[in-house]
Amino acid sequence: MPRYKLTIEYAGTRYSGWQVQKNARTVQGELARAVREATGAREFDLQGSGRTDSGVHAVGQVAHLDLPSGPGLPPETLRRRINDLLPADINVLAVAPVRHRFHARHDAVSRSYLYQVARRRTAFAKPFVWWVKEDLDVARMRAAAGLFTGMHDFRSFSDSDPDEASTRVLLDRVDVHESGDLVLVRVVGSHFIWKMVRRIVGVLVEVGRGGLEARAVSGFLEQASPIPARLTAPASGLFLERVVYEGEPADVPVRAVTPLT
Amino acid sequence: MPRYKLTIEYAGTRYSGWQVQKNARTVQGELARAVREATGAREFDLQGSGRTDSGVHAVGQVAHLDLPSGPGLPPETLRRRINDLLPADINVLAVAPVRHRFHARHDAVSRSYLYQVARRRTAFAKPFVWWVKEDLDVARMRAAAGLFTGMHDFRSFSDSDPDEASTRVLLDRVDVHESGDLVLVRVVGSHFIWKMVRRIVGVLVEVGRGGLEARAVSGFLEQASPIPARLTAPASGLFLERVVYEGEPADVPVRAVTPLT
Repeated sequence: MPRYKLTIEYAGTRYSGWQVQKNARTVQGELARAVREATGAREFDLQGSGRTDSGVHAVGQVAHLDLPSGPGLPPETLRRRINDLLPADINVLAVAPVRHRFHARHDAVSRSYLYQVARRRTAFAKPFVWWVKEDLDVARMRAAAGLFTGMHDFRSFSDSDPDEASTRVLLDRVDVHESGDLVLVRVVGSHFIWKMVRRIVGVLVEVGRGGLEARAVSGFLEQASPIPARLTAPASGLFLERVVYEGEPADVPVRAVTPLT
Repeated sequence: MPRYKLTIEYAGTRYSGWQVQKNARTVQGELARAVREATGAREFDLQGSGRTDSGVHAVGQVAHLDLPSGPGLPPETLRRRINDLLPADINVLAVAPVRHRFHARHDAVSRSYLYQVARRRTAFAKPFVWWVKEDLDVARMRAAAGLFTGMHDFRSFSDSDPDEASTRVLLDRVDVHESGDLVLVRVVGSHFIWKMVRRIVGVLVEVGRGGLEARAVSGFLEQASPIPARLTAPASGLFLERVVYEGEPADVPVRAVTPLT
C-alpha cells in the first residue's frame, strides 16, 4: 500500500472549502475524483493537513494519499495524471513517496497562513486580496501584531466549533510585511481555530486605519468580545501558505502570491 | 476643455479587445461608459495609444480624455469616480492633466509588450500565461530573439490588416528573461502590426522546444512563410506593458505580472 505526500495549490474562489461535502464542490472532492480517474482505485485514503474555509486559497496545502496495494506509480507520473484531470484552479505541485505512518494532519508541527491586503484597486488580483481603501499605518499594525504571539485564549477570534475542545492556541508569530502596494500578514502557529486568522487580520487592519488602539488586542485576548467577529477579514485575501513537518525549515521568506507593484 | 492622460491596467479575458465595437464588450467601451456616468458629459474624446486584441491584457495602456469645457475635476477625484464605476478587471492607475495637444497614439515614441510563458501548471495565473509543457531551451530562444531586432519586413508575422500601409517595422529589442517558473519575452518597438507579438513569441517557443532552428527566424524575415501564423501564441499570455512618451525613461526592469515561484 504505497503512501504519497501531495503538496497542492488552489484558488479557493469557486469552492466550498477544502473538506469534502455532499452537494457542494470542494477541493478535496475534486482531488479525490481526479485520483479515482487517474488510478482506477475505488477505495483510497486522502487526508489533508486541515480544512480551509469556503473561498480561502492555498499555496502549500499538504495531503497524504494511500493507494490500494500494488506496484505503485512513479510519483511524477501520478502527479501528471492527477493534474490532467483537475480543474485549472487546483494544481498538485509535488508528489513524494512517504513512510507508511506519515499523517498529513497529525504530523504537522506548524502551519502558516498568509493574508494579502491591497492598498490599491487591482485589475488582476481582486480574487486574491482584500482591498482596503483607507490609509493603513503599518507601524501601528506591527505593534498590535506582536501582542498576539504566545499562548492565549482566542475565543473572541473564533466562532464556536463543535470539533474544537479548547480556544487556547499557541501562536509562534504574527508578522506584518510591506511588499509594493500589498500589506502581507503572516500568522504561524501549531494549529488554528475556526475564522481565527481572518479575525486577527480584521483587527490588525482596523488598528491600521485608526479605528482601534493597538492595546485593544490585549483586551480581546483577556475577555470575550464581539468586536473581532464584526471585523472578520474576507476569505479572498487568505492563503494556507505552508504546512511544516519535522526536519523541514521553519523560516522561509515571505512572498506575495499576486504582487502589486 | 481639460485634457487628461489616463494610465490603465486591465485583464482582457472577458473583453473583445480594447477598441469600442457595437454589440461587443470592450475595454474602451466600459471606460467610456464609466467616464460618462462619472462626469455627466455626453460628448467627449477618449483615445487609446493603440488597440489590444481580444483576450490581451494591459498593465500600462495609455489613453487621452477630453472633457467638455468647464472648471475640470481634480485628477485624483476623476480617477476615483471612474474606478468606482468600472468592473473589477479594469483599473485606472493614474490620471494626469496634460497639454491640450497631447495625443496618446501619435505622441507615443515606443511601446513594449510582455509575454508570460509558464513552465509549469499554475492554479492562480492560468488566464495570464501560456503554459508550455515541453522543456524550453532559453539560450536557443535568446539566440533567435536577437535576430528580430532592427528593421524587417514582418509580413510572415502578421495577418493582413486594411489599416496598415506597410509590414516593415523597426524593432528595438526582443529580450528573453527567466523569472522563477516563467519565461518572459519583452518586445519593444515604435509600432506593431496585427498579431506580430504573438507570432514572434510562438516562433521563439518553437525554437525553445527544439522544433525550429534559431536561424529559421532569418528565413521568415526574408521571405513570406505560413509557419509563424501556425505557431501564434495564445492571447492569454500577452500584456501591453508600457507606452513611452518623450522625456520618459526607455528602460525599466522586467517584472512578471503574475510570478510563479
